[in-house]
Amino acid sequence: MVVVMRAGSTQDDVDRVVDAVTGVGGECFVSRGRHQTIVGLVGDLTQFAELPLHAFPGVEDVIRVSRPFKLVSNDAQPRPSTVTVGDAAISRDTVTLIAGPCAVETPEQTRRACELARDAGATILRGGAFKPRTSPYAFQGLGESGLEILREVSRDLGLPFVTEVVTPADVETVARSADMLQVGTRNMQNFQLLKEVGLAGRPVLLKRGMTATIEEWVMAAEYIAHTGNLQVVLCERGVRTFEPMTRNTLDVSAVPVAQSLTHLPIVIDPSHSGGKRDLVLPLIRAAIGVGADGVIVDVHPEPERALVDGPQALTAEDMAELRSTVTTFARAAGRRVATPATRGPVDRAGWGAAAD
Amino acid sequence: MVVVMRAGSTQDDVDRVVDAVTGVGGECFVSRGRHQTIVGLVGDLTQFAELPLHAFPGVEDVIRVSRPFKLVSNDAQPRPSTVTVGDAAISRDTVTLIAGPCAVETPEQTRRACELARDAGATILRGGAFKPRTSPYAFQGLGESGLEILREVSRDLGLPFVTEVVTPADVETVARSADMLQVGTRNMQNFQLLKEVGLAGRPVLLKRGMTATIEEWVMAAEYIAHTGNLQVVLCERGVRTFEPMTRNTLDVSAVPVAQSLTHLPIVIDPSHSGGKRDLVLPLIRAAIGVGADGVIVDVHPEPERALVDGPQALTAEDMAELRSTVTTFARAAGRRVATPATRGPVDRAGWGAAAD
Amino acid sequence: MVVVMRAGSTQDDVDRVVDAVTGVGGECFVSRGRHQTIVGLVGDLTQFAELPLHAFPGVEDVIRVSRPFKLVSNDAQPRPSTVTVGDAAISRDTVTLIAGPCAVETPEQTRRACELARDAGATILRGGAFKPRTSPYAFQGLGESGLEILREVSRDLGLPFVTEVVTPADVETVARSADMLQVGTRNMQNFQLLKEVGLAGRPVLLKRGMTATIEEWVMAAEYIAHTGNLQVVLCERGVRTFEPMTRNTLDVSAVPVAQSLTHLPIVIDPSHSGGKRDLVLPLIRAAIGVGADGVIVDVHPEPERALVDGPQALTAEDMAELRSTVTTFARAAGRRVATPATRGPVDRAGWGAAAD
Amino acid sequence: MVVVMRAGSTQDDVDRVVDAVTGVGGECFVSRGRHQTIVGLVGDLTQFAELPLHAFPGVEDVIRVSRPFKLVSNDAQPRPSTVTVGDAAISRDTVTLIAGPCAVETPEQTRRACELARDAGATILRGGAFKPRTSPYAFQGLGESGLEILREVSRDLGLPFVTEVVTPADVETVARSADMLQVGTRNMQNFQLLKEVGLAGRPVLLKRGMTATIEEWVMAAEYIAHTGNLQVVLCERGVRTFEPMTRNTLDVSAVPVAQSLTHLPIVIDPSHSGGKRDLVLPLIRAAIGVGADGVIVDVHPEPERALVDGPQALTAEDMAELRSTVTTFARAAGRRVATPATRGPVDRAGWGAAAD
Repeated sequence: MVVVMRAGSTQDDVDRVVDAVTGVGGECFVSRGRHQTIVGLVGDLTQFAELPLHAFPGVEDVIRVSRPFKLVSNDAQPRPSTVTVGDAAISRDTVTLIAGPCAVETPEQTRRACELARDAGATILRGGAFKPRTSPYAFQGLGESGLEILREVSRDLGLPFVTEVVTPADVETVARSADMLQVGTRNMQNFQLLKEVGLAGRPVLLKRGMTATIEEWVMAAEYIAHTGNLQVVLCERGVRTFEPMTRNTLDVSAVPVAQSLTHLPIVIDPSHSGGKRDLVLPLIRAAIGVGADGVIVDVHPEPERALVDGPQALTAEDMAELRSTVTTFARAAGRRVATPATRGPVDRAGWGAAAD
Repeated sequence: MVVVMRAGSTQDDVDRVVDAVTGVGGECFVSRGRHQTIVGLVGDLTQFAELPLHAFPGVEDVIRVSRPFKLVSNDAQPRPSTVTVGDAAISRDTVTLIAGPCAVETPEQTRRACELARDAGATILRGGAFKPRTSPYAFQGLGESGLEILREVSRDLGLPFVTEVVTPADVETVARSADMLQVGTRNMQNFQLLKEVGLAGRPVLLKRGMTATIEEWVMAAEYIAHTGNLQVVLCERGVRTFEPMTRNTLDVSAVPVAQSLTHLPIVIDPSHSGGKRDLVLPLIRAAIGVGADGVIVDVHPEPERALVDGPQALTAEDMAELRSTVTTFARAAGRRVATPATRGPVDRAGWGAAAD
Repeated sequence: MVVVMRAGSTQDDVDRVVDAVTGVGGECFVSRGRHQTIVGLVGDLTQFAELPLHAFPGVEDVIRVSRPFKLVSNDAQPRPSTVTVGDAAISRDTVTLIAGPCAVETPEQTRRACELARDAGATILRGGAFKPRTSPYAFQGLGESGLEILREVSRDLGLPFVTEVVTPADVETVARSADMLQVGTRNMQNFQLLKEVGLAGRPVLLKRGMTATIEEWVMAAEYIAHTGNLQVVLCERGVRTFEPMTRNTLDVSAVPVAQSLTHLPIVIDPSHSGGKRDLVLPLIRAAIGVGADGVIVDVHPEPERALVDGPQALTAEDMAELRSTVTTFARAAGRRVATPATRGPVDRAGWGAAAD
Repeated sequence: MVVVMRAGSTQDDVDRVVDAVTGVGGECFVSRGRHQTIVGLVGDLTQFAELPLHAFPGVEDVIRVSRPFKLVSNDAQPRPSTVTVGDAAISRDTVTLIAGPCAVETPEQTRRACELARDAGATILRGGAFKPRTSPYAFQGLGESGLEILREVSRDLGLPFVTEVVTPADVETVARSADMLQVGTRNMQNFQLLKEVGLAGRPVLLKRGMTATIEEWVMAAEYIAHTGNLQVVLCERGVRTFEPMTRNTLDVSAVPVAQSLTHLPIVIDPSHSGGKRDLVLPLIRAAIGVGADGVIVDVHPEPERALVDGPQALTAEDMAELRSTVTTFARAAGRRVATPATRGPVDRAGWGAAAD
């Protein structure tokens, strides 16, 4: 950290900063210039982070120059990590397609959407049973019966699934059924939820808050990691800007930036950021181009009947193009498309126990 | 709602929209022009809100022109409402000062900060026992023992207090001690938490999400109101922008805009938006000027020792100016400064029951 | 400045930075820690500013810790400066009301709007003759004949006026008629225009770019000051955010922040930020509360017939409230309302010469 | 357009709207519901655009539902257009590489950077002679002597070049030398400059304002088109957001969105948005993936000595990867890499005349 002193600060002001820092075991280097005095702090950031140096007399600014995260940092583990979801793996070597319905509405719609996803090459299914909705009057998801539908479809198709959990009390229930837990954009800083999903014995898909900085997003992953669970996949899904023509602005730069900070895999959600079906395939190509480890895509057999986010779902007609797009661009990016390990139904016998 | 058809849309496309709307009990008016066809939807918004009209063939855009909220709307109740916190009231006639420490650190610090707050004219105390922190390595608050400290200080000073609750599982515990529950900026769309605080039998202070639109904020209040609890106070605390010199950008315009939409009282938090002590008093003057029903302010007896947000806390030296500022500007705004109903210790006998 | 070295940087990398800095006359202090090396640069910022240290091998980040502006800094001149516009003065002691029509449309509309402005207590008139419009199909202003109208009304009412200049080629013409030149929000970084208005011998009203940081805004003022013209007034007029209910988000915090950086006066434009008439008076109260040295307000005798920005103009009915609002809040803020020096027609004989 | 009436609006209020619209030749359809009345306006938008309907009594909101631009709209010309720059063409069929130094510093640096660009496959060179800089103390470019350097290098390499023009007075001079005129991000709404470059007889590269909406950007292109010059290429270069780790946030979604609105070609600038060399190649892959018609890239032979934006420039070592990246991803996107028409020196004989 660097402490910048005000123009009129005194020797006493500087001494007070130095004393506070050395008092918690840090070292200080004072650079005294004609115009300005700067105090460089060297040591472990967590020592100083709690010091209210900003409030010290004579201090103009405190600038952090090192990373506030540890476990998920690629300083700690330089090799990109692989996250395992059921039989499937998400890693830097491959491009993983995660697909399925935005919301589970009926058994038929879910099965049909997941079959389309599988046919397009998905190795992980997605589907929402608990939906966070901005209006209390909107469809809130089927809840546990939605989970049951997902579980059956997943078993029959032999593919694992990820689903969102919106509140700590549901974590245990969801973790018993799902292969991966999703933390949604509105919950990225729901710190209690982060802790609970961390402890649930399942890999986690952590969506970026729609107005979170990249550092805050990685810090949210650190919260999960801090519980001992390093099976975290980051998911960029667009940030809020002044542009009204897209629901959110997909921040593709976040992929290489986050990869320069953390060893965790990163996927992109092109469906929720654009909010329009016509944008999904172009954004998938951008995502793979920029280096994402996968994409997570909404599919709906009949978007006109969708209860949630119909306008952005890919349909049966789009599946062939989805498959060939992922294949072509993965190859251009020097990666393989991830493939299912086995095609047989997934055996979940041992897994439920882990979550209990 | 207005459905805008694409340039090349067909009569069939228009008919499909009309059929869907009339199928749920709405009425349609079709405006057919040379260049463009527009379908006006008249009726109750909640009828159409679930129709995925965006995904219908031939539809270019769907524009909502009526308000998605009901219970908190000033259509439903044109008179500004009064929210009662213990003996104190927050209303459009007065300016209420809510003050106290950002975080409860020790009994002494809390008592001293609250005494300062009372002396400056506060009728409601504030203090954080459960702190949402972006780093898992940061001080997370004292939890239940912090609540206990607040309860004692509140009883001794004879003033009610508001404190944040960060997760549904804590709502019952916090509601047993606190006079008002605060939902923080990161939890504004934690819908389960909104429901639980709504059901807790306590008034609620709902901070605006730092990147929430005014409409989303009012919809979050509707979530609480939907549980039957209309004792909600909105709190503007700054939004996230590109400006780095302030922590957040205080959106004072949100006060008259929200007042044109809802009957709920609105207060401003000048401490967390600016993030700097020097900004607090100017922003309080702006807040009262723009028409806020109160302000909520951080106070700390020794900011240099604060564990959380020291740089923005007002100190003992600021109290006289705080008091006179609130008084002078409330008068300029044609309002009274809210005063405590009684000075005796608060009797909480009946209240705990409500939360149990 | 502080140069932060990468984790794996070498002694050679550090030496290269030190050599470059000392080569241009600066001094370096190297703080070498276990985890991180920091190089503090002490000296005059303009020495280092051109060094591409970011591109040096081993450098992770370069952090500026001192101010990039000089002439407008309150380091250079601690006392708030006064800007003189004809007979009127804008200063930290008073609250100045600048008012008039958004656009000059007809002689009658301009005269009527300016009479309303004068009756409400304005000491400076405003009116647009050259209008920057986002559409080439929109009304672009009356140009020189608009200037002529303003000049006549100004002379008859005995009040100076400010008007916008949108391109360098018009500066001389506008400066010959106007008492103050306005640089609009879209031109805040039109650097050639800044230089030309600086050289025109007239005070300048510099609107903040709708997405400019406070530092960029003050740097734009430095551009003008750099031509030798320190008669600059900053004008906050709202920044672009994600909030759709207001045209822009008025950043009232910018006033105290800018006052902590510069000696220049700062006024607020409540008309263009909110974009709605109902917001104007509340935002004027906020502006005076937060410490602005004045406000600049749109007035229109018949907003229903306005060619530009009718919805936000105050009307004849609002004038009494405008006058009393400014008076009451100026008093609350401990300031006087600025008054015209003389009521007789303004003599421009000597001024035109300055601009020629 | 759609006019939404307030809850308590009267028949008179509605009539006044209808009269105003029919008075300028439009048609109205009134949809009267229990809760709300909506007036649909049908006709040519430019008829109504000047009506101050927002300021009419009883009007709550006015919503535009059709496009405000005409000449650049793909309604007017459905086929993507081709823009010709010297011998080179920018079109929807190919991927064009535009490259060269950010700023012209010396003849040697410019020549070397442009040779690197050519070797990587660039068909158009770039280089800045007039630089808009946020500080008056920063290097402002070499001006006319920089143009002369570019002209020589361009002639010797047989490739056309694009360069920025920052003020109307320079347009003629720059147009005499350059093959394409660039309007920079800070000048996107410098309307006088847009008109002048439109009239200069040269194709124009129009950068998106860093806080402009896509619609405002396309409207700025309409300004140029309105002068009779349809040889405009849009350039997305990142928008301003709250994210501090990148200079700006590259909005790749803007490419397919703009392509759905306009027939103009669209290129991406990955150098200025990211501001970091490590981001340039990933963002080029994203740009080609999302469907951009080209990319414009900074190249510098010695970034450590660059006077402007050194940290983001590609170097000699990056050229092989740049070439292969563009080739590989253009193929994946089903496009050819644009190639120079002829390799011989460009004959400018006839061109200068056009600009005179």
